[in-house]
Amino acid sequence: MAKRIARSIIEFNRPPVIIGQAAVAGKVETEGPLAGKFSEVFMDERVGQPTWEKAEIALQQAAIKHAIAAAGCSAGDIDLHIGGDLMNQCAATNFALRDEDIPFAGVYSACASFAQALAMNAALLDGGGLQLASCCGSSHFCSAEKQFRYPLELGVLPTPTAQRTATAAGAIVLAQASDTPQPRITRAIFGNVIDMGVTDPSEMGAAMAPAAWDTLRRFLQGTNTQPADYDLILTGDLSQIGTQLLHELARQQAGLDLALLHRDCGLMLYDLIAQDVGTGGSGVGCSAAVLCAEILPRMRSGELSRVLFIGTGALLSAVSPLQGESIPAVAHGVLIEMT
Amino acid sequence: MAKRIARSIIEFNRPPVIIGQAAVAGKVETEGPLAGKFSEVFMDERVGQPTWEKAEIALQQAAIKHAIAAAGCSAGDIDLHIGGDLMNQCAATNFALRDEDIPFAGVYSACASFAQALAMNAALLDGGGLQLASCCGSSHFCSAEKQFRYPLELGVLPTPTAQRTATAAGAIVLAQASDTPQPRITRAIFGNVIDMGVTDPSEMGAAMAPAAWDTLRRFLQGTNTQPADYDLILTGDLSQIGTQLLHELARQQAGLDLALLHRDCGLMLYDLIAQDVGTGGSGVGCSAAVLCAEILPRMRSGELSRVLFIGTGALLSAVSPLQGESIPAVAHGVLIEMT
Repeated sequence: MAKRIARSIIEFNRPPVIIGQAAVAGKVETEGPLAGKFSEVFMDERVGQPTWEKAEIALQQAAIKHAIAAAGCSAGDIDLHIGGDLMNQCAATNFALRDEDIPFAGVYSACASFAQALAMNAALLDGGGLQLASCCGSSHFCSAEKQFRYPLELGVLPTPTAQRTATAAGAIVLAQASDTPQPRITRAIFGNVIDMGVTDPSEMGAAMAPAAWDTLRRFLQGTNTQPADYDLILTGDLSQIGTQLLHELARQQAGLDLALLHRDCGLMLYDLIAQDVGTGGSGVGCSAAVLCAEILPRMRSGELSRVLFIGTGALLSAVSPLQGESIPAVAHGVLIEMT
Repeated sequence: MAKRIARSIIEFNRPPVIIGQAAVAGKVETEGPLAGKFSEVFMDERVGQPTWEKAEIALQQAAIKHAIAAAGCSAGDIDLHIGGDLMNQCAATNFALRDEDIPFAGVYSACASFAQALAMNAALLDGGGLQLASCCGSSHFCSAEKQFRYPLELGVLPTPTAQRTATAAGAIVLAQASDTPQPRITRAIFGNVIDMGVTDPSEMGAAMAPAAWDTLRRFLQGTNTQPADYDLILTGDLSQIGTQLLHELARQQAGLDLALLHRDCGLMLYDLIAQDVGTGGSGVGCSAAVLCAEILPRMRSGELSRVLFIGTGALLSAVSPLQGESIPAVAHGVLIEMT
């Protein structure tokens, strides 16, 4: 039985294990620091599909297929798949699962969807009602630009603070606790909706940093731990401006220096100097792909053993800023330990 | 520890109890059969707000407030709120939670979101990591028409098969198992994405009926039960055409007669003869409101003791039918027992 450590912070009694993971990505992503670490890359931004929306569906299907292969199971073995994406009505996720024989539950917390899916997967597995579960998160630069900003054909230049929505997907297969050495999810936290009044939708990092800090602060307090107790605190996706703000919040409000122990997926997916990607990556696929392509392999190799992964999501819609709303944000986290 | 009865069918070991529920609704809904059963009604379709979107947010906030009051707790006691709605990026849910101090996780499975939220609430409570949890589902006729069909100002007539999106919200507060007599969630099932090729977005009932049947069929098989083992099989929201198709599927594929034991929330919210509501209600708020305003009170009064509630969702987006896609659907269920 799981233990309630503090409000919305759960410690798993029999920590579910990650038995397979995979990430797939587009051209720009494969030209960055994670080149060579994806299970499949798509140099054609359309992934051979007639629309951006179908391209993102194909990304998810590829990531799920590779993760299931890596886990050494089949789709028919999986009790529940949890997934999410940024498209209206989570369409990429829904349509990706249409061709799979896997029971499915959709989640939405913007770019925190993958972390939320992992947390829920872990809780349901630990609870004993599932044997195998999977999750996937995706985003696509072109479907996101079309939906949230401008059609690409208009050629509108991004603002200096904008992040680039990653064309990528990550997927994970989890199993009930076992004795084999695997990365396992030992704790989870669900975040509060935090809105500090940022109204500019090209300032996502600024909107999300206070949510990331709120979840990190509550997790450290609730578990009575310090940043130094972790090998890595990984957020996704604050990018340049959000990362600076998170570090400032941690310093000002708790006297903590996060510079050494914290990395952000939005800054790991791209090379901000060599690539034209604004202030870094964003999108559900960004943190999902960085976790699956880079972090989990480093955990399996023994390089990292305690990673606190906090996904961050900006909960705006395309309509809400036009109606004068500020941007609420949320951050969900899981503690992954290699034991 | 929960028991895995069959694939994606969970039996809870310590079934979480529903300690409070509430439903709120708009003018048309309060003129139907459930008049007098809502905790609050809004005769102004805008709920005193400047936009339809903000009106739906206000619906959710009212439902959550009344459910918390009915449960006799405060927002600060709740470990996790799970919610969903039909608006792009689940905006009604996200913004409703912005003003609440409650950790929050969003879900999306269209009109099955409320059933999914209940199933996940129950699994997390049974798992032991939460003490109190809540969920909410909402929809609004005007925000849905604007987003999925035509702006109301155009005055476009609905097709003869169309359902009316309910202006309503339902919310529930759940607690860990206790000995007091309350409705409790004893089992849950997550559905597969089913797509039988329906392409007309005004044929939602037809698109969802096969998903409802798939989930009902799997649940009956997995739990080795018959329809007669339940006082009520409640779907939401197939309405007239979907209900007929579900009954036909059950008869043809399993020789089952559902006519006596099955009711659909879309047919319970409105009076189809007296009201101009097409083939019945739909929207996340429809099944959420019917469950909270009608079914749970009838369970508490002893009139019903075993209700299998299966939420049904059509997983299209506003874009997908325009791109030639058919409509995938999903159905999630919970067994609620009054003991």
